[in-house]
Amino acid sequence: MYSIGIDLGGTNIAAGIMQDKKLLKTLSVPTNAGRPSDEIIRDMADLCARLEKLVGVNSVDSVGIGTPGVVDTKNGVVYNAVNISPEPIDLRGGLAAYISAPVYVENDANCAAVGEAVCGASAGYANSVMVTLGTGVGGGIITDGKLFSGVKGGGGEIGHMVICADGGELCKCGRRGCFEKYASASALVRMMEDAAKNDGAVKDPFDGKMIFELAKNGNRTALAVLEKFEYYLAVGIANIINIFQPEIVVVGGGMSAQGDYLLEPVRKTVYESILTKNPEITKIAAATLGNDAGIIGAAFCGQFR
Amino acid sequence: MYSIGIDLGGTNIAAGIMQDKKLLKTLSVPTNAGRPSDEIIRDMADLCARLEKLVGVNSVDSVGIGTPGVVDTKNGVVYNAVNISPEPIDLRGGLAAYISAPVYVENDANCAAVGEAVCGASAGYANSVMVTLGTGVGGGIITDGKLFSGVKGGGGEIGHMVICADGGELCKCGRRGCFEKYASASALVRMMEDAAKNDGAVKDPFDGKMIFELAKNGNRTALAVLEKFEYYLAVGIANIINIFQPEIVVVGGGMSAQGDYLLEPVRKTVYESILTKNPEITKIAAATLGNDAGIIGAAFCGQFR
Repeated sequence: MYSIGIDLGGTNIAAGIMQDKKLLKTLSVPTNAGRPSDEIIRDMADLCARLEKLVGVNSVDSVGIGTPGVVDTKNGVVYNAVNISPEPIDLRGGLAAYISAPVYVENDANCAAVGEAVCGASAGYANSVMVTLGTGVGGGIITDGKLFSGVKGGGGEIGHMVICADGGELCKCGRRGCFEKYASASALVRMMEDAAKNDGAVKDPFDGKMIFELAKNGNRTALAVLEKFEYYLAVGIANIINIFQPEIVVVGGGMSAQGDYLLEPVRKTVYESILTKNPEITKIAAATLGNDAGIIGAAFCGQFR
Repeated sequence: MYSIGIDLGGTNIAAGIMQDKKLLKTLSVPTNAGRPSDEIIRDMADLCARLEKLVGVNSVDSVGIGTPGVVDTKNGVVYNAVNISPEPIDLRGGLAAYISAPVYVENDANCAAVGEAVCGASAGYANSVMVTLGTGVGGGIITDGKLFSGVKGGGGEIGHMVICADGGELCKCGRRGCFEKYASASALVRMMEDAAKNDGAVKDPFDGKMIFELAKNGNRTALAVLEKFEYYLAVGIANIINIFQPEIVVVGGGMSAQGDYLLEPVRKTVYESILTKNPEITKIAAATLGNDAGIIGAAFCGQFR
């Protein structure tokens, strides 16, 4: 079984060809967001043809596309794909002009969750929640081996769960106190910048990795900021476990490379917090596939609907 | 089709016999919590026999039991049925000694959600979330016509979603800032009592109904407290919609009798808050069955697994 997964991002269109669960080759072209969607679709078709040629097959059994935005998975159309197109894009219909294999379209946060579930941190678990810490906080929910995303594909928005009511940080969604304003990579940087104003020894601008380095070298400001950040991350993950009680929560995004240095304090707080107080039911693990999760998840997304 | 639903509560065992979706007769006996569980089971069997006799049938097609606690629905056993028994109770096995019909056991908050979905506010919707405002806040989640409650039956605990991190009200679960500390009937009373300390014109103790009466009569303290309460309720409901995007959120508990007086301000805030800003996808409605929801839901719970 050969399949192709395409990760349509605001900057690049990354694609990979898989044989069963093995990612054989990947390719990438710039998205050049803002241009007509038929050009983007043609580039996707080109990537598919080049990948097939690279591994010496004439066709694949399925093609999956992961995209930002709200996806009508039944019809393969994406709405509100911010940074790519203000208009809906009929990705399935468009790609059908080039490719005879069935085409599946899925939200990119859901694809990351599927990728990890197929051959990453949550492989072997039918019930998982993926929390991706990036500019925002993305959510991907899999229950009984199927993606869950609400009646119109707009559910699973864990990043927009308010955890700090009563005047929390203002979110781009218009609410105050959203989880992603406290537990995203951007939130960590903001917290460090605020704290550094009172600490002459550290200078901004920071990125997430620098903050972890500072903390590992014993910088007190960075240590205090990380402790606060981990508390908020734990609040959100404990909420998720009380609501979904999955077998595993997978933490993704660049920060997940910190592994247990990030997650061990989070686990401690979460297991003290959840209603069952039972650390056995739901594991908390770092994602293992990095950027490949989106490609692999796109290739397999059709099997999770 | 005849079925019996039993609502096992801390105070009473209430039971009803149904013909299809029509509740024909109900009966109730005291639970006398703390006594051996085989006595409670025998009383349940007696209620079933009396109900059958009342409507002149020799047997029913199924019996369902709604109980507090975490339920192993596969085996019909309840754990941690607080106020009833500290030990697990094998309700299915126990009742099988008296009754030949299949016996289903379900968490009581889930039964309320099923009851409303069968013939109440959420009838006709396959995707609903019920939020019951009582001493705490109970959650019942139905997706694609099936109850969702996590891998070990401990999910769906919407009341224990923290919405006020950073030192919110202390919850009995050990966390600070749980939704149920801000949006339960008990929370409304607590808020009113706190506010009344600064208002000589109103005197505690209050119950929820009195607070609504005061507000309707123009009492400023009660109006301000209700406005605050409705904000918190809206925060939690908006979180639920961002996460689950159901077709309908049903608000239950005694307070739901206030109908639109309670819900109209909540709807306004929720629809401004949710990510889609779309008031069409998810309705917000008051429960319509009152205490019968638990009995009706118990009678039908087997069909929602």
